[in-house]
Amino acid sequence: EPETRLRKSGPGIVTGLAWTPNGGEVLFVESVAIPGSKGFILTGQLGDVMKESARTALSFAQSRSKTLGIPPEFFSKNEIHIHVPGGAIPKDGPSAGITMTTAILSLATGIPVPSTVAMTGEISLSGRVLPVGGIKEKLIGAREAGITTIYLPAKNLKDTVELPDEVKRDLAIHPVETMDELIRVFFASAMKEAPKGRGVTKGSRSSGKG
Amino acid sequence: EPETRLRKSGPGIVTGLAWTPNGGEVLFVESVAIPGSKGFILTGQLGDVMKESARTALSFAQSRSKTLGIPPEFFSKNEIHIHVPGGAIPKDGPSAGITMTTAILSLATGIPVPSTVAMTGEISLSGRVLPVGGIKEKLIGAREAGITTIYLPAKNLKDTVELPDEVKRDLAIHPVETMDELIRVFFASAMKEAPKGRGVTKGSRSSGKG
Amino acid sequence: EPETRLRKSGPGIVTGLAWTPNGGEVLFVESVAIPGSKGFILTGQLGDVMKESARTALSFAQSRSKTLGIPPEFFSKNEIHIHVPGGAIPKDGPSAGITMTTAILSLATGIPVPSTVAMTGEISLSGRVLPVGGIKEKLIGAREAGITTIYLPAKNLKDTVELPDEVKRDLAIHPVETMDELIRVFFASAMKEAPKGRGVTKGSRSSGKG
Amino acid sequence: EPETRLRKSGPGIVTGLAWTPNGGEVLFVESVAIPGSKGFILTGQLGDVMKESARTALSFAQSRSKTLGIPPEFFSKNEIHIHVPGGAIPKDGPSAGITMTTAILSLATGIPVPSTVAMTGEISLSGRVLPVGGIKEKLIGAREAGITTIYLPAKNLKDTVELPDEVKRDLAIHPVETMDELIRVFFASAMKEAPKGRGVTKGSRSSGKG
Amino acid sequence: EPETRLRKSGPGIVTGLAWTPNGGEVLFVESVAIPGSKGFILTGQLGDVMKESARTALSFAQSRSKTLGIPPEFFSKNEIHIHVPGGAIPKDGPSAGITMTTAILSLATGIPVPSTVAMTGEISLSGRVLPVGGIKEKLIGAREAGITTIYLPAKNLKDTVELPDEVKRDLAIHPVETMDELIRVFFASAMKEAPKGRGVTKGSRSSGKG
Amino acid sequence: EPETRLRKSGPGIVTGLAWTPNGGEVLFVESVAIPGSKGFILTGQLGDVMKESARTALSFAQSRSKTLGIPPEFFSKNEIHIHVPGGAIPKDGPSAGITMTTAILSLATGIPVPSTVAMTGEISLSGRVLPVGGIKEKLIGAREAGITTIYLPAKNLKDTVELPDEVKRDLAIHPVETMDELIRVFFASAMKEAPKGRGVTKGSRSSGKG
Ligand SMILES: [Ca+2]
Ligand SMILES: [Ca+2]
Ligand SMILES: [Ca+2]
Ligand SMILES: [Ca+2]
Ligand SMILES: [Ca+2]
Ligand SMILES: [Ca+2]
Ligand SMILES: [Ca+2]
Ligand SMILES: [Ca+2]
Ligand SMILES: [Ca+2]
Ligand SMILES: [Ca+2]
Ligand SMILES: [Ca+2]
Ligand SMILES: [Ca+2]
Repeated sequence: EPETRLRKSGPGIVTGLAWTPNGGEVLFVESVAIPGSKGFILTGQLGDVMKESARTALSFAQSRSKTLGIPPEFFSKNEIHIHVPGGAIPKDGPSAGITMTTAILSLATGIPVPSTVAMTGEISLSGRVLPVGGIKEKLIGAREAGITTIYLPAKNLKDTVELPDEVKRDLAIHPVETMDELIRVFFASAMKEAPKGRGVTKGSRSSGKG
Repeated sequence: EPETRLRKSGPGIVTGLAWTPNGGEVLFVESVAIPGSKGFILTGQLGDVMKESARTALSFAQSRSKTLGIPPEFFSKNEIHIHVPGGAIPKDGPSAGITMTTAILSLATGIPVPSTVAMTGEISLSGRVLPVGGIKEKLIGAREAGITTIYLPAKNLKDTVELPDEVKRDLAIHPVETMDELIRVFFASAMKEAPKGRGVTKGSRSSGKG
Repeated sequence: EPETRLRKSGPGIVTGLAWTPNGGEVLFVESVAIPGSKGFILTGQLGDVMKESARTALSFAQSRSKTLGIPPEFFSKNEIHIHVPGGAIPKDGPSAGITMTTAILSLATGIPVPSTVAMTGEISLSGRVLPVGGIKEKLIGAREAGITTIYLPAKNLKDTVELPDEVKRDLAIHPVETMDELIRVFFASAMKEAPKGRGVTKGSRSSGKG
Repeated sequence: EPETRLRKSGPGIVTGLAWTPNGGEVLFVESVAIPGSKGFILTGQLGDVMKESARTALSFAQSRSKTLGIPPEFFSKNEIHIHVPGGAIPKDGPSAGITMTTAILSLATGIPVPSTVAMTGEISLSGRVLPVGGIKEKLIGAREAGITTIYLPAKNLKDTVELPDEVKRDLAIHPVETMDELIRVFFASAMKEAPKGRGVTKGSRSSGKG
Repeated sequence: EPETRLRKSGPGIVTGLAWTPNGGEVLFVESVAIPGSKGFILTGQLGDVMKESARTALSFAQSRSKTLGIPPEFFSKNEIHIHVPGGAIPKDGPSAGITMTTAILSLATGIPVPSTVAMTGEISLSGRVLPVGGIKEKLIGAREAGITTIYLPAKNLKDTVELPDEVKRDLAIHPVETMDELIRVFFASAMKEAPKGRGVTKGSRSSGKG
Repeated sequence: EPETRLRKSGPGIVTGLAWTPNGGEVLFVESVAIPGSKGFILTGQLGDVMKESARTALSFAQSRSKTLGIPPEFFSKNEIHIHVPGGAIPKDGPSAGITMTTAILSLATGIPVPSTVAMTGEISLSGRVLPVGGIKEKLIGAREAGITTIYLPAKNLKDTVELPDEVKRDLAIHPVETMDELIRVFFASAMKEAPKGRGVTKGSRSSGKG
């Protein structure tokens, strides 16, 4: 039974990828909006770097509110709670940045992200997608967990060259340079104007061949 | 004299299960709502993981307010205090997640949970019930304490196969995959619409035979 | 000169019992209400467990406001300051729980507790009175300090069997299972309805004979 | 040149006594009221016990507001700043409790305390004055610094028996059991009714003879 | 591909310079304004000195609001978030002070700073630009990253004497004594009056010859 | 080039003196007022004693608001930011107390303090100026930096006896006992009434002869 079947569906939940000593694993980023204005809640034994990454994700998401038609009250009258199960496993690093950003935007727009999609990549506050480690293991683990579509930093494309053949075959791998590209993929329907220019569209840029 | 006799009745109190070096024990999660808006109070020498688990329980409970007819003011004008006696014994881990969630919902709906029921399981923010450790010891301890009905994570069902015969005989064991299943069991009367679909109903899914 | 003569009289002051390496001692819990809404003040070098015990005492006391006719403003417009002299002596443990709860209720109702009364016992958030240690030493110390009436957890009654004869003779020992029993003893005059049922009444249940 | 000449005069400044490895010393407690409502400011490298002592002093002072005609706004619209020079010398212990209480009341009533007076004693929240250490050294140091009048805990009177003759001769020593006695000595003019009963009056109870 | 191509354009982003054991590197300071009034957000694993430097940058920027026509609400109704990628790399020191100040002013005025410009220098609260270390390595790294224009503290001009010829050739190096000089360079168009006096103007003070 | 030339002019900036293992140095205390009411900002790697000293300086300055015609809003609607460059150098001790107090008062009154003046001295909350260490080194360093006028604690006058002749010759040294004397020197023009009595006036009390 593939692990992704365990994920719940609905806005606010996005699948990321983690490197562990036992191989790559999928990791679920869950978010909810709680009425209130006290701050920002992070749970799941997140380390300092990952907490800052979540904070950066939230600020970036807020900076795109207007573009995506998210009412300002969404962020001012709610506290965003991000949880990364399992609750007892320490986690750290910046590589869930784009996953957390996407989860917050999914929550804020009400648009779910398919459970067969996984992503990994550091986000900068201006929305650049920066390279991360453990790509090979993460993609092998993603396939085992039933994932079919991957988004990763363009600078990590080189790390996909030596993937096992069955991983290359089963995963559609999309490199991205900016978070705005991901926004156009998943949240175009929320954008005030239709996306234009060099947007990544679903399935259009498989780079599995390296 | 069975230990459950010691538990007080009434909304906000739910029995959990703890693994200790001396065997499984029941553990009472107590909650009250105090007028105020300063936050969330946790006592009982809870460790970091258990505190985050309580925080996740609270956010999940808030996310189900509407479904259960809980007025928004319940959470915005009260502080929720969760206490796990005894006050001097350090406790940690995510396994009281569904117990704390159920206690908060019992408090918020005013619907008590029977004192012969005990439960164990990690909760995720989206309401998945994740597997925990020490199931065998916890269930032996639950029976000794006078418990007759157990709710545990579906993924832990395999751990009930080798239970002593008298434990299998005396306990009705209900596996759950989501917190929403538990909500339908205990708080259906608070739901705006009658529960439907594949809800777990009391006694209907004894898995004591493994 | 018995030590209890040193205690001041008036609402908000209740005598507890402490175990020390040099034997049992009385300990005075003092409380005042300060106009303000910033929180809860604890002084007297209290350790973490005792601080949580005080927090539990406060929440329990607030949960009984209505029953005792305490106006909601008492807790929302005052800060409760609890001090346990001497200021330089570290103190810890949950055993002053019922003493602190009684002190807060005495303060809130304006009803003093006699200076010849002492008490010891952990309180749970739902008002159960849980057993504590050092009963024998505490009761010997209480008698030396001029105490004549003791309230302790029902589960500690067994610890009073081997008390010296003069202690059994001089102390009226009352076991209690719940904080509500103590409320009926000391604060019945504040209750909206007369207390009924199996309430402990002063002097009626001396268990000095063990 | 006696050290007390260095103290400034005016409301809010009271002389205490400190034990140091080099003998007893006078110590000046200075206080000012700053418009604001954020809290309570303590400076002078005060240790935890001394900070709690200051907090107890403040709460006690507030509890006597009505008696002394101090308007409630004095405490709700000001922050009280207490400083104990020198700023680089760590200080701790509860023995400046009555000095800090007297300084706050002097500040709040606008009534100065004579610079030839010094005091030492722990304060409890209910206003008991508890015994402290180092009395002999403190009184020798007080005399050297030009102090002529001492207030100390009644329970410390025994420590004055073996004082050098010139100290007994030069100091008027007043034992006090409660802070309310000190209030009657220094702030009687602020009290709504004239003080009555067994109040200590200046010079009336010299216990220099032991 | 020069690294500066990776930087995003737009207000709030300015390129700084870092010394690392592997040589000088460009470092991007990114800033956004988030509606809110809770404070100031810093991410990117910044050490204590760098956090204070950011705080000083913010206060200085606020002190120049009037001059630059920045409405007071910009700072009172927004939280400024400053992020320095990469998120997992610890960074410290005061040398990004003028870079962070310029980033905040770029954000507040809406005027972008060219991506071919880099700067390094400590800022004082009054706007002095103080010397920093690692100038030689930073400038070599800047050139490698595609930078063409450098601003540095006047007191660091002596450190540019022994730069390799190609660095001197490719970089226009501008010494500055105060932050106000930099303001005149980049934000003159926002100033209420035209800049006058000895302002540094773009390209006018190349000190590449040492 | 004398170091004082580097200091900026204008209200809020005052020159202090620091002892370092390499000799005495001038140190610039810079302050600005930022709209807001959240508190008090200190930067420059200040240690605990120096932070408390700054806090004492602020409270003292506030206590003199009325005398100096500073509107109450200046302190209630602004946050005072005090910075002591260089940002990476740890600093501690109480000896910049009068320098920080003077800087705050200069900022609040809008009256600058000449850049040829330097001062050193601990301040108490009531405005006494207490003696500090390192006077000889500090004054030698002050002269080297171009300072011509020094204010120091009266109790430190004895430390100026053995100064090198050229230091005695080049520096006008003014002893002060209270901060109010310094206020009369620098801020007399802001005082509601003309200063009277034994005020120190500029140049009138040179103690360079020891
Ligand atoms: Ca796997
Ligand atoms: Ca990831
Ligand atoms: Ca058991
Ligand atoms: Ca459990
Ligand atoms: Ca005793
Ligand atoms: Ca007790
Ligand atoms: Ca002395
Ligand atoms: Ca004292
Ligand atoms: Ca490089
Ligand atoms: Ca830099
Ligand atoms: Ca020098
Ligand atoms: Ca100084």
